[in-house]
Amino acid sequence: MISSVFIANRGEIAVRIARAARDLGVRVVAGCSTADLGSGVSVLADRVVHIGPAPSRRSYLDAAVTIQAALLSGAEAVHPGYGFLSEDADFAEACAAEGLIFIGPPPEVMRRLGDKSTARAAMTAAGLPLLPGAVEPVRDIETARCVAEEVGYPLIIKAVAGGGGRGMRIVTEESDLVPAFEETTATARVLFNDGRVYLERYLAGARHVEVQVLADAYGNCVHLGERDCSVQRRHQKLIEESPAPRLPEGLARRIREAAVRGALATGYVGAGTFEFLVGEDGEFYFMEVNCRIQVEHPVSEMVTGVDLVQEQFRIASGERLRCKQSDVELRGVAIECRINAEDPARGFLPTPGLVEEFVPPGGAFVRVDTHARSGYRIPPDYDSLLAKVIVWAPDRSSAITRMRNALTELRVRGKGVHTTAAYLDAVLADPRFAGATHHTRLLDDFDVPVAVA
Amino acid sequence: MISSVFIANRGEIAVRIARAARDLGVRVVAGCSTADLGSGVSVLADRVVHIGPAPSRRSYLDAAVTIQAALLSGAEAVHPGYGFLSEDADFAEACAAEGLIFIGPPPEVMRRLGDKSTARAAMTAAGLPLLPGAVEPVRDIETARCVAEEVGYPLIIKAVAGGGGRGMRIVTEESDLVPAFEETTATARVLFNDGRVYLERYLAGARHVEVQVLADAYGNCVHLGERDCSVQRRHQKLIEESPAPRLPEGLARRIREAAVRGALATGYVGAGTFEFLVGEDGEFYFMEVNCRIQVEHPVSEMVTGVDLVQEQFRIASGERLRCKQSDVELRGVAIECRINAEDPARGFLPTPGLVEEFVPPGGAFVRVDTHARSGYRIPPDYDSLLAKVIVWAPDRSSAITRMRNALTELRVRGKGVHTTAAYLDAVLADPRFAGATHHTRLLDDFDVPVAVA
Repeated sequence: MISSVFIANRGEIAVRIARAARDLGVRVVAGCSTADLGSGVSVLADRVVHIGPAPSRRSYLDAAVTIQAALLSGAEAVHPGYGFLSEDADFAEACAAEGLIFIGPPPEVMRRLGDKSTARAAMTAAGLPLLPGAVEPVRDIETARCVAEEVGYPLIIKAVAGGGGRGMRIVTEESDLVPAFEETTATARVLFNDGRVYLERYLAGARHVEVQVLADAYGNCVHLGERDCSVQRRHQKLIEESPAPRLPEGLARRIREAAVRGALATGYVGAGTFEFLVGEDGEFYFMEVNCRIQVEHPVSEMVTGVDLVQEQFRIASGERLRCKQSDVELRGVAIECRINAEDPARGFLPTPGLVEEFVPPGGAFVRVDTHARSGYRIPPDYDSLLAKVIVWAPDRSSAITRMRNALTELRVRGKGVHTTAAYLDAVLADPRFAGATHHTRLLDDFDVPVAVA
Repeated sequence: MISSVFIANRGEIAVRIARAARDLGVRVVAGCSTADLGSGVSVLADRVVHIGPAPSRRSYLDAAVTIQAALLSGAEAVHPGYGFLSEDADFAEACAAEGLIFIGPPPEVMRRLGDKSTARAAMTAAGLPLLPGAVEPVRDIETARCVAEEVGYPLIIKAVAGGGGRGMRIVTEESDLVPAFEETTATARVLFNDGRVYLERYLAGARHVEVQVLADAYGNCVHLGERDCSVQRRHQKLIEESPAPRLPEGLARRIREAAVRGALATGYVGAGTFEFLVGEDGEFYFMEVNCRIQVEHPVSEMVTGVDLVQEQFRIASGERLRCKQSDVELRGVAIECRINAEDPARGFLPTPGLVEEFVPPGGAFVRVDTHARSGYRIPPDYDSLLAKVIVWAPDRSSAITRMRNALTELRVRGKGVHTTAAYLDAVLADPRFAGATHHTRLLDDFDVPVAVA
């Protein structure tokens, strides 16, 4: 087992990684920006290293600074968490060049799957179904017109280097194609330093279903069931659950098997997520691979009993998978709610500030992953994820009730600090969610509940 | 389903019951003494009823006041939790007489099993193995001498009306018999208003193994595996786990089956616990039945996925058990630590007072049941249980590590307030516990760790 790890992340996932490391007897070094010194992870870490000022560009996104800090701390490995440098193949490569174990897939795999174009090509080769669209990047408006003609409307333009729902745009009619193409290209250049985009058919009424896989370096791969993450606001997931509700068993099996096939075909190693869209027609289509641990990983942990972050450490240590597919048993239903420090009544404006009182829900089958506690000051520099509330129950209806009760137990009090808890509660209460007839556009016309506004 | 419940208890179990009720859509009325107004359960309750001053005798132990309060609140049922009135058959009967559903076994079953003498007779009839000793109460010193002659030393004198480890005394040699008999008789009279005692062989080096059962009113009964509660200090459990470690599979099966047989033979209804001693010789002996939910019930919930308190509600509502024995599947290992507000360095003296900061541990497979939060004032009037930390892991060694990390995450800060957390951590680190070679006398010679003193 790796003897020590440098956590190149912050917030709840830094705490999550530190806990897994401690449970495995791995020494924890936490890299913290000025804004995060003294935060959640620093309490759990054996050592805290200051890596720079609050702005991410000068700390959590600075690969050179991160590697230098990891080396100086004497850590053997680097865990990148999600976001920041986690999907940066150059960073992974630079870690390896400096003798640091990067906890994630091999850089060449990250590179191939991180590029949506080569990822689509690889998955086509592996026999996974893709939405009609361009496998190659669309470099100019002429090509875009040709592809659009073939694909039809509505279609979606995505950045080749994108992921996590950023920089996408849906085009419903031909007249929008040119401005949309120009906008997404420009956005992609800014966000990902790579202006390439591609087009594919847009599925209205589709559900987001993703499969968690674990693969070791010896050609073994298992899936841990699938998650439904269809409750999204502007392509950002808010509520996730496992297993996916109302998914016919045969279809679920085919999607899970497709993910494993895709992982094996691409030499995937580590924990990864294969994202799919499931159309109203009952067909599924490959979207992208996330080469990292995901925010919503706890729901898979709750139904399988597998500690995914511990498995990441084991795989990175060169261990073989400890379980075969037949050992992975899905039990019950788990739901996660992302509690963001945002004000739904003001367009989900982030509300940084001092959390005077933080009381997490507790009790049977309730889990909270957070870096917050009473007295925590939410910095204005980062995303607004404050806590994740996860519940488990034998069935979905009980899980929803348990989650709603847990959300009312959660107490976050601070001047100017708001959360999405009451908003999420209203979503959970929506008959479309309860009946699992919802799809990714559920929240498009979802009113902010009056009690929250 | 019962529409509303009056919680005739306090502390963490009142919170636990309120959560189960809320998850089932049952309206919650919390009966609180003056000392508990504004405490944990009051936040969750739909209504709080003041039932009297702090001393238990004038509130939580006052059956008439409790029934009156329940009736006035319009509650349909009464949940007695553990301790207080939970094993008082007269109280259960009085509830029924007033039209209140008592959430527990029928009064006549409670009465038969609460009396150790009739309980032993019933279990003998059901074919359960008992320790050599008197089935009948031993009423005078002459009889005591005769029984002692037969049983041999060491022996243990227990109150017929006792339970939960109170009012017992081990006698190692004949010269101690008379004073021990007189003392236990006197103590039993004070504690239980019933001076009858009985004698049985005392098993040194035995383990405490108990079986959780659930039985409905239609003759169906299942067990939910067993718990080992051998880590005790003065007969009070401190650490509990499920399943029992180092218990040969055949023996575990026989103990579980014995509990179900005992429950069926006595017409048991509800959640109950059959307690056994397992000797070094690999034999097991019936001790007593606890006709209520127990402090340590969460470890069974964690390995089975069954919400025991919800099941209590269901059974009391007249529902049939929803699972057959073959549906009950034990997964992994769960451990519970009772965090008492006591100072181990001063003979485990209770330390009431203001908890200025309370930060529970969290994350994957960690559960906390508590009524405490930052700003909670521990009253001096009740037992010192402040919180229960429960963890789950695929195997025992991982569960121990996870628990030790969870205990260091737990933060309870307040002037003069101490907890048993560091003491329990030292017990978890003891090789006898780690190797599961410990028995109920483990803590007899256990030094309070220096760091705690």
